[in-house]
Amino acid sequence: MVVANKYVVVTPFVGTPKKTDFRIVEEELPALQDREFLAEAAYFSVDPYQRVKLGNQYPCDMIGGQIAIVTESKNPDYPVGVWVMGHFGWRTHTIVKPDEDKLHSQRPYLYKLPDFGDLPVTLGLGVCGRVGNTAYFGLTEICQPKIGDTVVVSAAAGAVGSHVGQIAKILGCRVIGFASTEEKCEWLVNELGFDSAGNYKTIDIAEFLKKNAPNGVDCYFDNVGGVISSIVMSHMNHYGKIAVCGAISSYNETDVGTSKALIVERYIVAKELKVEGFQVNRFADRSMEGIRQNLQWVKEGKLKYREHIFNGFDNAPEAFIGLFNGVNIGKTLVKI
Amino acid sequence: MVVANKYVVVTPFVGTPKKTDFRIVEEELPALQDREFLAEAAYFSVDPYQRVKLGNQYPCDMIGGQIAIVTESKNPDYPVGVWVMGHFGWRTHTIVKPDEDKLHSQRPYLYKLPDFGDLPVTLGLGVCGRVGNTAYFGLTEICQPKIGDTVVVSAAAGAVGSHVGQIAKILGCRVIGFASTEEKCEWLVNELGFDSAGNYKTIDIAEFLKKNAPNGVDCYFDNVGGVISSIVMSHMNHYGKIAVCGAISSYNETDVGTSKALIVERYIVAKELKVEGFQVNRFADRSMEGIRQNLQWVKEGKLKYREHIFNGFDNAPEAFIGLFNGVNIGKTLVKI
Repeated sequence: MVVANKYVVVTPFVGTPKKTDFRIVEEELPALQDREFLAEAAYFSVDPYQRVKLGNQYPCDMIGGQIAIVTESKNPDYPVGVWVMGHFGWRTHTIVKPDEDKLHSQRPYLYKLPDFGDLPVTLGLGVCGRVGNTAYFGLTEICQPKIGDTVVVSAAAGAVGSHVGQIAKILGCRVIGFASTEEKCEWLVNELGFDSAGNYKTIDIAEFLKKNAPNGVDCYFDNVGGVISSIVMSHMNHYGKIAVCGAISSYNETDVGTSKALIVERYIVAKELKVEGFQVNRFADRSMEGIRQNLQWVKEGKLKYREHIFNGFDNAPEAFIGLFNGVNIGKTLVKI
Repeated sequence: MVVANKYVVVTPFVGTPKKTDFRIVEEELPALQDREFLAEAAYFSVDPYQRVKLGNQYPCDMIGGQIAIVTESKNPDYPVGVWVMGHFGWRTHTIVKPDEDKLHSQRPYLYKLPDFGDLPVTLGLGVCGRVGNTAYFGLTEICQPKIGDTVVVSAAAGAVGSHVGQIAKILGCRVIGFASTEEKCEWLVNELGFDSAGNYKTIDIAEFLKKNAPNGVDCYFDNVGGVISSIVMSHMNHYGKIAVCGAISSYNETDVGTSKALIVERYIVAKELKVEGFQVNRFADRSMEGIRQNLQWVKEGKLKYREHIFNGFDNAPEAFIGLFNGVNIGKTLVKI
């Protein structure tokens, strides 16, 4: 008999998530039925969206994607030894019946990893997974930048932001990033090829944009919302496009819906801006297209990535908390 | 020799516009040249956009559309007696050379009024003019409502808002308006057929929406921006669409760019909202299509309108100021 360990979120997060918000629970798994397989987690994905996508009932299982290997199988499509990406949540072992796509809200729920060659399987949770597709489809489909456009990215050192900026460079754009430390900004400019990057905690954002985007901003890929975004929007060019991918600046509000920022509608109408929120699920039917394109760029050396890997099942909450206090750089993962 | 009287804006508006911001200047007009005609103003248009579309140099001529009649002509396309709509600004007499479209920023600069039949020429500045086209194209092209959708309109008793709500009703939507007095709200519901209307100064907007939009909001036609808009956006349905037509709530800021409202990005991403600013110039090539459709609806009795006409050239500033303190209902005009 297999015993799974899983994380349960005990109560709704209030303010910054705390370790005591989580509890580890053991779960005895039954024997496999026909068409089922057993997946053993190798890596958990740790993402900001997990903060806001939990249900309304507590305690509840922690959500999230994982890279897992099939260790037992009664499904010939998923034989033992196959690597999969699955939205199984933060749990060590999962019985999966692929015919039942039980998590429609996190499409695709399950797929076999493509052949990454010499590259690590962790790419399946990062640049060549849901995160990479968020960057790829969000930038190319929502912002639709043209050669020579000036593209601004917030939370630019995060998994999505660092990827977005590099695609924008591949597409021939001038790229400006905002991040929360000097170290992150240096990484963006010196290693990833951003044209400039500013530490929003210490700079005057408006002045920085005047200097580094002298022709205005054409596209803004927004991961944070709020104060920074209002200022960027005031520097947009006519018909500028804004892809709103996240709003992490307000996710940790203790009293939800109280954070304020400069009114943006005056800029939206004056410059006829298009602001569109999106979730990668929208492009679920094109998942493999995005993964293959990102994988090709990685193999060609055009797309660099950094992984922030926390070791051990027990450290998952710490990894998660690190997302919200600016500690993590690149894609955050937990090695099981 | 003809002497024109015109309004000049002496200094940039600070806070609510004041009568002393304007000065009347006399201008001697030269004799007509070939292809020119003389237009004598009958009505001035008074619109919020005039607050924000002046140039950067002062003193400057006041901008705006007018309905005028041709009183002298050396242009066979515009014979004496023809009515025109022209963006001539607030001036009594104008020499026009149609071949020179000198105000590209206010397209269309000039056209002959279509035949309004028994209806007044003032329609050419309201429901069957630029204002009507703002409502028509903004709602149908940016919001694209479907039958049964719930549509919210802010500044709903204004020229654009009252028109938008009625088109939404024609298209089979449930329509909710926000306005600044009980009188306006009664007009919207009892005469224009809005399903409900709330005085945003006295109601709890969120509670009002919960009650009157129990299935959520699909489309929001926004004329005001700011506090009201943040609350409406928090009640939008997935893939909801927002047409941002104006941001009058922040136009009168004394210190521009200081008004704050609840951060909207969290709603934009959670519901994958599309927020798009627009100006009617974008649809200038389809001006006559919009005018004819609106005229047909007026003739069929499906589209009602109210005009707030101030009498006399001297009262134009008062008419303008009335836009910003909530005094005016429907389309504001000045009869010369």
